[in-house]
Amino acid sequence: MGDFEFDAATALDGEGPSYDLRIPGGWGAETVNGGFMLALLTRAMDAVTPFPDPIVISGLYLRPAQPGPAQIRTELIRAGRTTAFAQASLWREGKESLRASAAFSDLSTASGPGFTVGAAPALPPPDECVGMEPASARGISIAERFEYRYAETPGWIQGSPTGEPSAEFYMRFRDGREPDMASLPLIVDAASPAVLEIGIERVTTIELTVHLRARPAPGWLRCRTATRFLSDGYHEEDFEAWDSAGTLVAQSRQLAIVLR
Amino acid sequence: MGDFEFDAATALDGEGPSYDLRIPGGWGAETVNGGFMLALLTRAMDAVTPFPDPIVISGLYLRPAQPGPAQIRTELIRAGRTTAFAQASLWREGKESLRASAAFSDLSTASGPGFTVGAAPALPPPDECVGMEPASARGISIAERFEYRYAETPGWIQGSPTGEPSAEFYMRFRDGREPDMASLPLIVDAASPAVLEIGIERVTTIELTVHLRARPAPGWLRCRTATRFLSDGYHEEDFEAWDSAGTLVAQSRQLAIVLR
Repeated sequence: MGDFEFDAATALDGEGPSYDLRIPGGWGAETVNGGFMLALLTRAMDAVTPFPDPIVISGLYLRPAQPGPAQIRTELIRAGRTTAFAQASLWREGKESLRASAAFSDLSTASGPGFTVGAAPALPPPDECVGMEPASARGISIAERFEYRYAETPGWIQGSPTGEPSAEFYMRFRDGREPDMASLPLIVDAASPAVLEIGIERVTTIELTVHLRARPAPGWLRCRTATRFLSDGYHEEDFEAWDSAGTLVAQSRQLAIVLR
Repeated sequence: MGDFEFDAATALDGEGPSYDLRIPGGWGAETVNGGFMLALLTRAMDAVTPFPDPIVISGLYLRPAQPGPAQIRTELIRAGRTTAFAQASLWREGKESLRASAAFSDLSTASGPGFTVGAAPALPPPDECVGMEPASARGISIAERFEYRYAETPGWIQGSPTGEPSAEFYMRFRDGREPDMASLPLIVDAASPAVLEIGIERVTTIELTVHLRARPAPGWLRCRTATRFLSDGYHEEDFEAWDSAGTLVAQSRQLAIVLR
């Protein structure tokens, strides 16, 4: 899949467990996107674990990072019979930027009960929705990697935040790459924060946890973001991604803080 | 606070950064409660960080643990100007059971915007609610450490699951200890799983992330648990704890799997 931007940007050379790499430009805003860094570490952890599917990934954001030379260090914590656990860290200029851990399993052999409360976002067909042109993203390069489609233009884009910190929209890679387990850790952090709709402009992630539930079917993802509790600038941001077959594929939550 | 069970059970002797301890009985079911182990590691991380409040804690459950001799190893990852990051692991019989990481800050000096969607569970006064007697907990020793009060007796206790995987209830330590930042990581994992109401009896935690938003006021906590997505046995369990002043103090999510 090296013809796609995401795969080229997250390719790791060498055998591991440590890697030298270059964090490319174009995957962030003022700093490198947190989900992009988490996807990099998930790819590195995947290489040291015997199961194909990251089912839960948690990352602690220690320092913002800029594009440039970097190192990844990985550790296989435990490989059990059905679940394996790994840790990885991303270093930039001798300083640790992100520490992540994950559990891996094989969802193709998973079996057990199912039950769903709630449903995918109800949206008109993508062709009847409005896009968010890259120009609207105001220098946020990560937004140029994706297409977003909303039932109506979000209030914050028009300078009129709705007062409701939530959103539903379609999302896909702009270059045609299909979603998969490797790219979902990026996708859950690559949309506009829900708090833009209550007039907040800049936030940064402290911790991000992603649950991956199923390998996504090709096509548009239906996504939902929401913040319910903002206290002294601290807030959670929840993200759900549903695939074109109507299956919840990712559910994430981050703790973020408002920047002034 | 050594007169209370929780403080005696989580006391750490010595200077750190590593500790020898004995995991006491009475804080779990078939195995030691995951939230109890996370509270142990949070206490150990607190000892190596310069800020008083754990604002986010994430734990990866590698192996179940039984009571008995154990070791904790801690690492201060980074101490920044307003936030510090630490990691800790719990070892039992030479094997790692839990690896956790956390960010600490000082919430007494936090300032920033606030906004809330939703509210604390609406419940009758505690005296008009029904309790869950320890006998109902069927050998689940962790339930003997707490009092729970429900508006109505939960369906699963009566052998008639409601079919709705959610619950609202009061909760407090049975011995009169007040809730605080140290005990919240235990409290969020010490109530009955919401999936009991859809007929599922045994689950185990893979990962648990806890956001702590405020130091709780004394008194009963109002709590809410819910599971929305159960797929092939994997499911999230969300937990909210609101203090007696009506403030959200903890919000947690775990990825768990159904056991047969």
